[in-house]
Amino acid sequence: MRLAELSDRSGVSPATIKYYLREGLLPAGRRVSATQAAYDETHLQRLRLVRALIQVGRVPVAAAREVLAALEDESLDHNSRLGTAVWALPHGPEPEDGDPATEVARRTADALLEHLGWPYVAELRDESPAYRMLVTAIATMTRLGYPCSVDDLAPYGRAARQLAVTDLDLMERYEPAEQLEAAVALTVLYEPVLLGLRRIAQAEESNRRFGSGRSGDSEA
Amino acid sequence: MRLAELSDRSGVSPATIKYYLREGLLPAGRRVSATQAAYDETHLQRLRLVRALIQVGRVPVAAAREVLAALEDESLDHNSRLGTAVWALPHGPEPEDGDPATEVARRTADALLEHLGWPYVAELRDESPAYRMLVTAIATMTRLGYPCSVDDLAPYGRAARQLAVTDLDLMERYEPAEQLEAAVALTVLYEPVLLGLRRIAQAEESNRRFGSGRSGDSEA
Repeated sequence: MRLAELSDRSGVSPATIKYYLREGLLPAGRRVSATQAAYDETHLQRLRLVRALIQVGRVPVAAAREVLAALEDESLDHNSRLGTAVWALPHGPEPEDGDPATEVARRTADALLEHLGWPYVAELRDESPAYRMLVTAIATMTRLGYPCSVDDLAPYGRAARQLAVTDLDLMERYEPAEQLEAAVALTVLYEPVLLGLRRIAQAEESNRRFGSGRSGDSEA
Repeated sequence: MRLAELSDRSGVSPATIKYYLREGLLPAGRRVSATQAAYDETHLQRLRLVRALIQVGRVPVAAAREVLAALEDESLDHNSRLGTAVWALPHGPEPEDGDPATEVARRTADALLEHLGWPYVAELRDESPAYRMLVTAIATMTRLGYPCSVDDLAPYGRAARQLAVTDLDLMERYEPAEQLEAAVALTVLYEPVLLGLRRIAQAEESNRRFGSGRSGDSEA
């Protein structure tokens, strides 16, 4: 297909597609004349992923390039490629080494992984950006005096386990060749869904517990 | 307590505390001399919330002021104050009115709320920023061709319901006077915890399904 059709089918403007091509986020099309190139389904799929990363995930262009490089790294197996791609996603501020709250948070995070029975990431620990993201978050709560014991955190871990099963089931609906791109895209795209649904569910639960009967059905 | 002690107990630097005082995010202390003011536990608690909002939630100062105003609005009941405060939190880009994908997303979001049995937010719909956050996210997935039917989304909704029960239980451990501040802080502080745990759980689940036995315990 021509660039115009790629734009129509992806909903991404031609100017933005050209920008992604220049930045190496999208492989060049097959040259068909001096001024035209042809694109195929793999371009469309890649474009969707790039769009998800940059627009929804607010992933910087350099990090997006790293994510894409991991997906194409044929020296890695399926699991490691997926892990490396997800690890290249932004994961917020790093833990502050040597800070007492960070040390407490590390012990809490380790005890939580042990409690949840998660040996894979427990073994990788500091190599894993998601582990460091967790430590930073627990350290902040420790510093501010908000509840963040293993018992407080465990229900969030159990919810995360269910979410991960749902995530991977969704990914496995794709053909093997498309699974990695889908997994990274869905990781990013479902984050605002999840945070939005949590706030909606909080409003429902708060109304159920404390509501003044604003909604007639709320006590049902 | 003096400003120095407020700083020690909160882990927030005196310069930052003075900035929050100037910006009206923290009420002035009780004046005890021409150059000194005294602060109490309510200042400490407020400071923790402001820190959570600004540092973790990356809430702009103006939005933080709105959140705090809602918490203090005595014309509202408990449930409405909490709702209004959470509604003032940033919630990402607005849905694009008139865009076909947004129309599809609105119908999907409504069907999802109906499916989940959430009448309170279903009734408020477009007034709710969390509903609009959900619509924007579903519209993006619709536009990019990623799976986002009611059946795809329902497991995330069920996870969100469990999370909300955990969130509100955590909040109810606080004294009534502290519950609203705690609820807003915990909404924001647990977001990176949840997203970090989801990525960790994905790595565990991916390793369980596709792993090459990198962790000896992973098949246990």
